Amino acid sequence: MLKLVKKESKKVGLPPGTLLYVGEKRTEKVTIKIIDYDETSLQEKEARTVEDCFPYKNKPTVTWINVDGIHRVDIIETIGKHFGVHSLVLEDILNTGQRPKMDNYGDYLFIVLKMIYCNGKGSEIIAEQISLILGSNFVISFQEEAERDVFNPVRERIRNGTGRIRKMGADYLAYALMDAIVDNYFAVLEKLGEQIELLQEELISDPTPETLHAINHLKRQMIFLRKSVWPLREVVSGLERGESPLIKAETNIFLRDLYDHTIQIMDALETCRDMLSGMLDIYLSSISNKMNGVMKVLTIIATIFIPLTFIAGVYGMNFKYMPELEWRWSYPVLLLAMAVIVVSMLMYFRRKKWL
Amino acid sequence: MLKLVKKESKKVGLPPGTLLYVGEKRTEKVTIKIIDYDETSLQEKEARTVEDCFPYKNKPTVTWINVDGIHRVDIIETIGKHFGVHSLVLEDILNTGQRPKMDNYGDYLFIVLKMIYCNGKGSEIIAEQISLILGSNFVISFQEEAERDVFNPVRERIRNGTGRIRKMGADYLAYALMDAIVDNYFAVLEKLGEQIELLQEELISDPTPETLHAINHLKRQMIFLRKSVWPLREVVSGLERGESPLIKAETNIFLRDLYDHTIQIMDALETCRDMLSGMLDIYLSSISNKMNGVMKVLTIIATIFIPLTFIAGVYGMNFKYMPELEWRWSYPVLLLAMAVIVVSMLMYFRRKKWL
Amino acid sequence: MLKLVKKESKKVGLPPGTLLYVGEKRTEKVTIKIIDYDETSLQEKEARTVEDCFPYKNKPTVTWINVDGIHRVDIIETIGKHFGVHSLVLEDILNTGQRPKMDNYGDYLFIVLKMIYCNGKGSEIIAEQISLILGSNFVISFQEEAERDVFNPVRERIRNGTGRIRKMGADYLAYALMDAIVDNYFAVLEKLGEQIELLQEELISDPTPETLHAINHLKRQMIFLRKSVWPLREVVSGLERGESPLIKAETNIFLRDLYDHTIQIMDALETCRDMLSGMLDIYLSSISNKMNGVMKVLTIIATIFIPLTFIAGVYGMNFKYMPELEWRWSYPVLLLAMAVIVVSMLMYFRRKKWL
Amino acid sequence: MLKLVKKESKKVGLPPGTLLYVGEKRTEKVTIKIIDYDETSLQEKEARTVEDCFPYKNKPTVTWINVDGIHRVDIIETIGKHFGVHSLVLEDILNTGQRPKMDNYGDYLFIVLKMIYCNGKGSEIIAEQISLILGSNFVISFQEEAERDVFNPVRERIRNGTGRIRKMGADYLAYALMDAIVDNYFAVLEKLGEQIELLQEELISDPTPETLHAINHLKRQMIFLRKSVWPLREVVSGLERGESPLIKAETNIFLRDLYDHTIQIMDALETCRDMLSGMLDIYLSSISNKMNGVMKVLTIIATIFIPLTFIAGVYGMNFKYMPELEWRWSYPVLLLAMAVIVVSMLMYFRRKKWL
Amino acid sequence: MLKLVKKESKKVGLPPGTLLYVGEKRTEKVTIKIIDYDETSLQEKEARTVEDCFPYKNKPTVTWINVDGIHRVDIIETIGKHFGVHSLVLEDILNTGQRPKMDNYGDYLFIVLKMIYCNGKGSEIIAEQISLILGSNFVISFQEEAERDVFNPVRERIRNGTGRIRKMGADYLAYALMDAIVDNYFAVLEKLGEQIELLQEELISDPTPETLHAINHLKRQMIFLRKSVWPLREVVSGLERGESPLIKAETNIFLRDLYDHTIQIMDALETCRDMLSGMLDIYLSSISNKMNGVMKVLTIIATIFIPLTFIAGVYGMNFKYMPELEWRWSYPVLLLAMAVIVVSMLMYFRRKKWL
Repeated sequence: MLKLVKKESKKVGLPPGTLLYVGEKRTEKVTIKIIDYDETSLQEKEARTVEDCFPYKNKPTVTWINVDGIHRVDIIETIGKHFGVHSLVLEDILNTGQRPKMDNYGDYLFIVLKMIYCNGKGSEIIAEQISLILGSNFVISFQEEAERDVFNPVRERIRNGTGRIRKMGADYLAYALMDAIVDNYFAVLEKLGEQIELLQEELISDPTPETLHAINHLKRQMIFLRKSVWPLREVVSGLERGESPLIKAETNIFLRDLYDHTIQIMDALETCRDMLSGMLDIYLSSISNKMNGVMKVLTIIATIFIPLTFIAGVYGMNFKYMPELEWRWSYPVLLLAMAVIVVSMLMYFRRKKWL
Repeated sequence: MLKLVKKESKKVGLPPGTLLYVGEKRTEKVTIKIIDYDETSLQEKEARTVEDCFPYKNKPTVTWINVDGIHRVDIIETIGKHFGVHSLVLEDILNTGQRPKMDNYGDYLFIVLKMIYCNGKGSEIIAEQISLILGSNFVISFQEEAERDVFNPVRERIRNGTGRIRKMGADYLAYALMDAIVDNYFAVLEKLGEQIELLQEELISDPTPETLHAINHLKRQMIFLRKSVWPLREVVSGLERGESPLIKAETNIFLRDLYDHTIQIMDALETCRDMLSGMLDIYLSSISNKMNGVMKVLTIIATIFIPLTFIAGVYGMNFKYMPELEWRWSYPVLLLAMAVIVVSMLMYFRRKKWL
Repeated sequence: MLKLVKKESKKVGLPPGTLLYVGEKRTEKVTIKIIDYDETSLQEKEARTVEDCFPYKNKPTVTWINVDGIHRVDIIETIGKHFGVHSLVLEDILNTGQRPKMDNYGDYLFIVLKMIYCNGKGSEIIAEQISLILGSNFVISFQEEAERDVFNPVRERIRNGTGRIRKMGADYLAYALMDAIVDNYFAVLEKLGEQIELLQEELISDPTPETLHAINHLKRQMIFLRKSVWPLREVVSGLERGESPLIKAETNIFLRDLYDHTIQIMDALETCRDMLSGMLDIYLSSISNKMNGVMKVLTIIATIFIPLTFIAGVYGMNFKYMPELEWRWSYPVLLLAMAVIVVSMLMYFRRKKWL
Repeated sequence: MLKLVKKESKKVGLPPGTLLYVGEKRTEKVTIKIIDYDETSLQEKEARTVEDCFPYKNKPTVTWINVDGIHRVDIIETIGKHFGVHSLVLEDILNTGQRPKMDNYGDYLFIVLKMIYCNGKGSEIIAEQISLILGSNFVISFQEEAERDVFNPVRERIRNGTGRIRKMGADYLAYALMDAIVDNYFAVLEKLGEQIELLQEELISDPTPETLHAINHLKRQMIFLRKSVWPLREVVSGLERGESPLIKAETNIFLRDLYDHTIQIMDALETCRDMLSGMLDIYLSSISNKMNGVMKVLTIIATIFIPLTFIAGVYGMNFKYMPELEWRWSYPVLLLAMAVIVVSMLMYFRRKKWL
Repeated sequence: MLKLVKKESKKVGLPPGTLLYVGEKRTEKVTIKIIDYDETSLQEKEARTVEDCFPYKNKPTVTWINVDGIHRVDIIETIGKHFGVHSLVLEDILNTGQRPKMDNYGDYLFIVLKMIYCNGKGSEIIAEQISLILGSNFVISFQEEAERDVFNPVRERIRNGTGRIRKMGADYLAYALMDAIVDNYFAVLEKLGEQIELLQEELISDPTPETLHAINHLKRQMIFLRKSVWPLREVVSGLERGESPLIKAETNIFLRDLYDHTIQIMDALETCRDMLSGMLDIYLSSISNKMNGVMKVLTIIATIFIPLTFIAGVYGMNFKYMPELEWRWSYPVLLLAMAVIVVSMLMYFRRKKWL
C-alpha cells in the first residue's frame, strides 16, 4: 500500500494525461510479442519496432499484442496514438498504482488488473499491474516485466487450438487472459492457506512472539490481496452486464463463470481473515496461560518454603531462654512438622488444580 | 476452506469448460438410480449403462436421475451431452469447490447446494456438493459419494405417494430435494448447539486451554456452515422470484417456506456466533480470575511470613550487646507479638476480601 | 435459540405441510373463545366444539376467535379447513420455531409474532408464538398456552366499547392485538433496564465473576429479544405499505404508530447492548485493577522486608572475625539504619502513588 | 434510555390515541405565548385561556403558538381539537419518549425533535421533547418546561425583523425553530469535546479507575446524543424532499443548509466515539504498564537480595567444621563478593532496560 | 474535530445567512489574484480593490479569481453580491467547519474542499477550507490563508500553456484545482505511511508507551483525513454524473480520473487503518511478553534460592542435639547437595523453555 502512495506522489503538480513511468528504474529491453490468429491461421512473432504492430489494427483476425515492460514511455505513447487510445488511459497504464477497474471508451475497453505472485520464499505477495485494451479485433496487454507471466497456458491453447479460443473473438481472448490471472490467485491463496495451517500448528505446540508477527504479516498480505480482488468483482460484473457491444453474448456465460471464481476467492479471503482473527485470540490467551504457569511455579515454591524458612529462623534466634533448644527430640520433631506442612500444602495445591 | 482452494488450483492454466475431477481419488463404482413417476405410475431402477437414462429426457412423466459419484468424468460428460447441458455446468459439477448458486440456462436450471454432515464423533462438519439440473420434466442430481444421503425420505414419499409429491411436477421434486438438504442443516445445528451448551458448562466449572480451542473450533465450523447457508438464501429467493417458467406458481409457496427455513438457520447461526463470542470473553476473564487467585495466595503467604522471618532474623544476629537476648521472657513475648502480627494481617486481608 | 433448533429437527424428512406439534407435551384442554361484535352488538362465548366457530366465517360482524393451546393438531386442522387456510400456514402455526413474519395469501393475511414474558424471578425471557389469521371480517389467534396473555386490555376495550375498536373492522382488531404484544415489550425492556442498572451499581461497588455471568446472561437475553423484534419491523411496515385490501386506509395511521413503537424498542435494545459492552470493558479493567492492588501489597511488603532480612542475615553469620559484632552500639545503630531504610522506601512508594 | 422505556410502560394496555402525560409530576402553570406577524405588523401576547389561540387558526398572518408545559392534558386536547390535530399526534406530544420524526398529515406536518442541554455541572445531557405542528399559516410548538429554551434568538429576530424571517411564511418559522435547536447541539458537542480533551490529558498524566468511568460515561452520552441526532437527519431530508405543499421552494435551500448541519453533528459524534475508543485502549494499556512497573520493582529487589540472603544464611550455619568461619579475611571478602553480585545484577537489569 | 465544533458554536442564535468569520483572528491583507485566459491570450494581475474583479463576470474568456484570506467579511460580501451568489453560500465560505460538498445553484456550482498539509514536523495534519464557485466562464476560489497553496503547478500550466488547460473552459479549471488538492493528499499520505513504517520498526525493536501514543495519534490523523476524503467522493461523483450544464462532456473523463484518485486515497486510508489496528495488537501483546519476561526472571531466581535459603536456615538453628552439626563432612556435602538442586532446577526451567 505504502509503495503505491509513494509512486503516485511523484506526479503531484503535473497536468493530467502526462505520461510518466512511476515504477522502479528498469533497463531491460521492452519486448512486444504479437500473436495473430483465427480459426484456421496462426502467426506468432516478436516485433522489432513498434511500427510492426500497426498493421494489425484493422486486420479481421484476432490479434494479441503483449507489451512486456512499460518503462519506455515513448513506446507506450506510439502504440497509444496509433490505436487511438486516450492519454488518460496511457497515463493509467504507466502509473502502476491503479486499482483494478474497467473503463468503457466506446471503441475500446480499458481493463486494469493485478497479477499476484508469491516471491521466492513464498512469504511475500508481489503485485504486478496488467492493463488490457480490448478493441473489436485486438487485445493489447501491458505488463511491468517479462520474467514472470501467467499467460503461457493461454498461448499454448492458441498455438494448439485447444478449447474454444481459436473459434472466438477478441473478447474471449481478453476473458482468457483475465481468467488466467484469476486462476493464479487460487495458487497464491493455496500457499497462504498452507502458511496458515503451519502457523496454527505452531500456535498449539509453541507460540512465540514470532508467531504473532507471522499472523500479522499474513493479515497484511490478506489486506493487500483483498485490495486487488475486491474491485475485480465490479470489473467482471461490469463486463458481464454486457453494456459494451465489444462483449459478445456467447462470451457472457464465461464471464459469469469468472465472476463466480472471484466470489470464491473473496469467500476464501474472508474465511482466512476470520481464522487469523481466531488465531490472534488463541495467541493472546496462550501468553496469559504461560504467565499463569510461571506464576503457579513461583507461588508453589514460595508458599512452601517461606513458612519453613520462618520456622527455621525462629530456632536460629540467640535467646538465652528457649526451652525447645535444650530438648533432646526437638530437631527430629521439627523436621517431621515441616514434612507435614509440605505435604498438606501440596494437597492444597492439588485440590486447587495447580499441580 | 483451505481444501476448496487446493482443489481449484489444480486447474490453473486449463481452458474453461475442461472437465476434470478435482476431489480425492475414488475407485467405487458410479451408480445411477432412476425414479420415474406420475400420479398413477411409478418405476424405479438402477441404470446399468449411462444410456439407460436417455429415454427419460422427453417422457411426459417426472424423472429423477440420481448420479452417485462424480469421479468418472466420461459418465458425466455423456449425460451432459445427451441432456444438452453446457460444458461450464459440467465443469462446475465436477469441481466441488463451488459455492451454492443457481444459474438459469433457459431450458434448464443449474442449482449447486452443499449437503452438510457431522462426522462420526460429531465434532467435524463435512460438506458434500450436490448439483441439480432441473429440466421441464426431469431432475438430475449429482452427489460426490453414495454412502451418506439425506434423500431417502423423499424417495419414500415418492414410493408411498405421501404428500403432494406424486401430483406435482419436476420443479416440486427439485424443491423436495432442496428441502431435504435444508432440513438436515437443522440436525447439524442441533448437534453444534449441544456442543455449545456442553462448552458453556465446562466454561463455568473448569475452563482449560482446551476449552478455548473447542470454542475456536466451533467458531470455524460456524464460518464453514455460514459459507454454505448464506448464498443458499439467494438461490432460494432467486427461484422463488419466479423468473423461470420451469418453476410453476403452485411450487412458489413452498419455495417461500424453504426461504423462511434458510432465514431461520441463518438466525440460529448468528445467535451461535454471538454466544461463542460471549464465551470467549468469559474464558479470557476466567483466566484472569485464576491468575488473581494464584497471586492472592502468594501475596497472603509472603506478606505474612516475610516480616516474621525478618524479626526472627534480627534475633538470630550475633551481636555481643543485645539486651533482649538475655531477658527471660523475650521468647514467649516475641511469639505473642508474631501471633498478633499474623492475626492483624489476616484481618486486613479479610477486609480487602482476599479471604 | 438452541431450543428452536431442536424443535425443528424433529420434522426432518417429513413432507412439507405435515401437521405436527413440536413443542413440549401438554395435556390441558384447548379452549376456543369467541368474541363477535360490531358497533352496536356484542356476543362473547367459549366454544364447546370446534364447529361452534364455523358460523362466524361469513357473518358481517367482526369475530375474534382465540385458540388457547396448539397441541391438539386435529382442532387446528378442522379450523384451518373450514376457514380455507393453506396447510403450510397450519404447519407454521404448530411449529413454534417461526420468526415473526407476515404472509399475504390473498383472502387472508397470516401474521406470526412473539409474545415475550419475564419468568417469575424476572431474569429469564420466555417467548410464546402468537399466530394471527386476518380475514375480511374475522381474526383467528393461536396461542401456545392459556395461562399468560396480554390481550385482556383489548377484551376490556371491546366489552366496554372504549376507544375506536367497536367502530372499526377486523384489521383494526388485528392491529390492537399486535399493539398489545408490542406494548408488553416495553414492560419487559423496563425489567431488563432495571437489571442493567443494578448490575452497573454492583460493577462499581464490588464486581465478582458472577457479575460477568450476569452481564453475559443479559446480553443473551438481548440477542433473544432482538430476534423477536427485528423481523417485527418488516412485518409492520409490510402491513402499513397497504398492499392488501384487507388493511383499510384508516387503520394505516395506527400501523404507522405501531411501527414507531417497534423502532423505539429496537433503539432501546441497541442502547442496552452498547451499555452492556461498556460494562464488560469496566469489568475486565476492574479485574486488572484488583490484580494491580494485590501486586502492590506484595511488592511493598517484599521490597521493604527482603533487604532488612538480608542485613539481619549478615550479622547472623558465624565468622570469627567480624568487628561489628563486638562493638557496643552496633545493635541500636543497625535498628536505626533499618528504620531509615523503611522510611525512605515508604517515601519512594508514596511518590510512585502506590500508597 | 432506561427512562424512556419506563415512561412508555405506564401506557401498556390503554387504547391507542389515549391522552396521558407520562413525564414527571409537574405543578407549574402551563403558559401559552402567541406571536403573530407578517412583514409589516407584529403582535405578541400571552394567552390567558386556551381559547385565546383560536382566532389565529385562519388569520393570513403567520402565528407562532408556543405551549410551555404539556402536563395539562386538557389544554393540549382543546388546542388539538380546534386545530384539527389527530389524536395519535396529541398522544405523541404527551408521550415524551418519541424519537425525532416527521409525519405528514396532509393539512399539517407533525415534527418531533429533541432539545439537548447539559445540566449545571455540564456532565449530564438532558433531552426535552419539542413537538411542532406546522399548518399553512401557523406553527404550534410544545415544550416540556419553560425554564430552558433555545428559541429566544428566534423571538428577537421576529421582534427586530432581522434576517428574512418576517418576510417568509410559517414553513420558514418552523425551519428557524429547528435551526435553533440544531445550533444548540453544537454548543453541547463543544462541552463534550472539552471534557474529552480534559480526559485525554488526565489519561496521559495519571489514569485512575475514575478515568475509565468518565470515558464510559461520555460514551453513554454520545449514544444518547446519537439517538437524538440520527433520526433528525431523516426528518430534515424528508422535509427538504418537498413532498408537502406546506414547504415552499424558497425555504428548501435553508433546509438543505440545516441538513448539512445535522451531517456535521453526526460526523463530530462519530469522531468523538472513535476518540473515546482509542482512549479506552490507552487506558487499558496504561494499567498494564503500571503493573509492569510494579512487577519490575519487585523483581529487581527480590533478585538482588534473595541470593545475598542465601549467602549470609550459609555462613550463619552452625556446622563445627566450616573452614571459612575461622579465616581472618572471610568477612570483608564476602562483603566484596556481595557488592560484585549487586553491581553485575544492576548491569544485567540495565541491559534489559528495566532501570 | 473539536475545533470545528467550537467555531460553529459561536454562531448559535444568529439568523441563517448571517456572514461571520469564525476562524482565528487574522490581520494580514486579503489578496485577490486574477488570471484571465483563453487559448491565445493571458492576463494575470493582483486586484487592488474588489471592484477590479467585476468586469470579468461576463467576459467570454476564462477567469480565475483567487481570494487569499476570508477574514474580511465585507470583501466576500461585495464579491458575492456582484456575482449573484446566495447568502447561504457566502456563509458557508466564511464558516470553515464545512464538510466537503457540492451544491448546484443553477447558474453556478458551489464546491467546498479541504486542502490538507502536514505541519513543519510532519506529525500534525492541518486542513484549510477551499471554496470554489464555478460559473459558466469563471472560477472564484477562496482560501483561508495565502502562505500555503497547492495551486502553483496549475498557475504554471496556465502561464506556459502546458497540457489542455488553455484550450478548455472554466469547468476544466475547477477540475484542475480539485485535482491539485487531491494530488496533495497523496503527498500527505506518503508522509503518514513513512511514519507508520517507522513505528512498525520501533514496535519490533523497542515498544514504549510513547509508541502507543504515536499509534493513537496516527489513528486520529487517519480519522481526520477520512473526514475530508470520504465526502469528497460524493462531490466528484456528483460532478461527474453531469447533471449541471456547467460541466461539459469533455471534462467528464477527467472527473472520472479524479474519482479514481479519491477511491485510491480511500483505499490507502483503509489499509493504513487496518495496519494501525494490527500494530495495536502487537503493542499490547509485546507488553504482555515483557511482563512475562520479568516474571520469569523473578520466578527463576526465587525458586532457586528460596529452597537453598531454607536449608541454610535449618542448619542455622541452635538446637543442642543436631547430629549433622558435629559431623566432619556435613558442610561440603551440603554445598554439593545445593549444587545438585540448582542444576536440576535449571534443567527443569530449560525444559519449560524459560531459559
